[in-house]
Amino acid sequence: MIDNSALLAQLAIVLVRPKIPENIGAAARIAWNMGITRLILVRDSIPDREPMAKMATHKAAHLIDNIEIYKNLPEALADFTVVVGTTARRGRQRFVEQTPREMVATLLPQLPNNQVAIIFGPEDTGLTNDDLKYCQMTSAIPTADFSSLNLAQAVAIHCYELHYGIIHASKDMTSAPQLATSFELESMYSYLEESLFAIDFMGEVSHTYWMSNIRNFFSRMMLTSKDANIIRGISKKFLLQQKRPKS
Amino acid sequence: MIDNSALLAQLAIVLVRPKIPENIGAAARIAWNMGITRLILVRDSIPDREPMAKMATHKAAHLIDNIEIYKNLPEALADFTVVVGTTARRGRQRFVEQTPREMVATLLPQLPNNQVAIIFGPEDTGLTNDDLKYCQMTSAIPTADFSSLNLAQAVAIHCYELHYGIIHASKDMTSAPQLATSFELESMYSYLEESLFAIDFMGEVSHTYWMSNIRNFFSRMMLTSKDANIIRGISKKFLLQQKRPKS
Repeated sequence: MIDNSALLAQLAIVLVRPKIPENIGAAARIAWNMGITRLILVRDSIPDREPMAKMATHKAAHLIDNIEIYKNLPEALADFTVVVGTTARRGRQRFVEQTPREMVATLLPQLPNNQVAIIFGPEDTGLTNDDLKYCQMTSAIPTADFSSLNLAQAVAIHCYELHYGIIHASKDMTSAPQLATSFELESMYSYLEESLFAIDFMGEVSHTYWMSNIRNFFSRMMLTSKDANIIRGISKKFLLQQKRPKS
Repeated sequence: MIDNSALLAQLAIVLVRPKIPENIGAAARIAWNMGITRLILVRDSIPDREPMAKMATHKAAHLIDNIEIYKNLPEALADFTVVVGTTARRGRQRFVEQTPREMVATLLPQLPNNQVAIIFGPEDTGLTNDDLKYCQMTSAIPTADFSSLNLAQAVAIHCYELHYGIIHASKDMTSAPQLATSFELESMYSYLEESLFAIDFMGEVSHTYWMSNIRNFFSRMMLTSKDANIIRGISKKFLLQQKRPKS
């Protein structure tokens, strides 16, 4: 049996290119309120401490002090094995859209053995399609008229649902195995992409379209490290064989 | 069948003595996001428009423009028939504490025929016991270590749960009848209190204690206008009879 704080410790809130330091502080406070202690920024520069700390209050100041900052999203996600993207509900179904509550229900069995990143985009634009390609699932808060939320409010509702789901989780829930890390998956995708180019499966124009479909397919599969290494290994061997002069 | 927007229109967010105008603006934005359009302030003065409007964004600016301001809570609540107080989880059980999700489930059957106020206290102290005496139920957001949330975050989580509950409500749910207004209840309590003094049921010292118990009892009863008028009528008659010179 795994206790709640051990499950909460598997979670990180990742803010991608946030503009307003107050929102980072407010996110720290609500994360701390909900027992989540890992906060990650993807940002070119370190934001001003004072407005962050003010919104975090002294109780969550240590989250601000221990904040992890990365220049880009793949580096930030490298060690995570499950990545959830948060989006405004968009109607079109690139991903299977879940509400935060449904997402948490899907996530719970993954928590015991997986490091999970919940990623949030910038205040004005949200996550880009390029950001979303690292995510195995997405979560969209139902709103009236598809309106978009304030960043700190979106973080609040997700942290609340995660905490609520964990404290109410069944103690005999079945744990899913540890999955491949984001780093392992990206390495796999990179070899796979090269291989698919080599056999002219996709051209320059249709490239993004096909890779996006392939990523969606593998995201649904929830690959383990072993799975990812097999696919990566096959692609690598194929590429070596291709480069060998034909006899 | 009642549609979702009609149910959402029964709700009002009431901010009691909020200090920070930005929080009022953030509350307006999330209320609007969740299809709730009535915002009420209990406050001595009108807060600065600019910081409120900035946080509300132009989309929720009309909520700020139409904000209703009252000097005290009983005036603000006079026309409401169901009042929900939001509190930090406190351990001691003055009220039956429900999570926002449980509160929404209890509230849903009341929504078709009742105007519902969800009230939030000031940033630093929350609602006082005196504020809470107007509430038939309370809602406390589960947090780690009983920590207290930022006001705008607490509003966000409640608006989210209300909206979620309404859009997922069963269309064949049974509607509860219209209840007594806060004004009718306060009038009833006032006569009842005088009557209980007259028969020496309670002294000056135990006064608050007993009235609080009596309020809890009647809150659980969910009195209609007719119920409240009967109790008020009996108390009034009793008091008249008491004042009549004994023959």
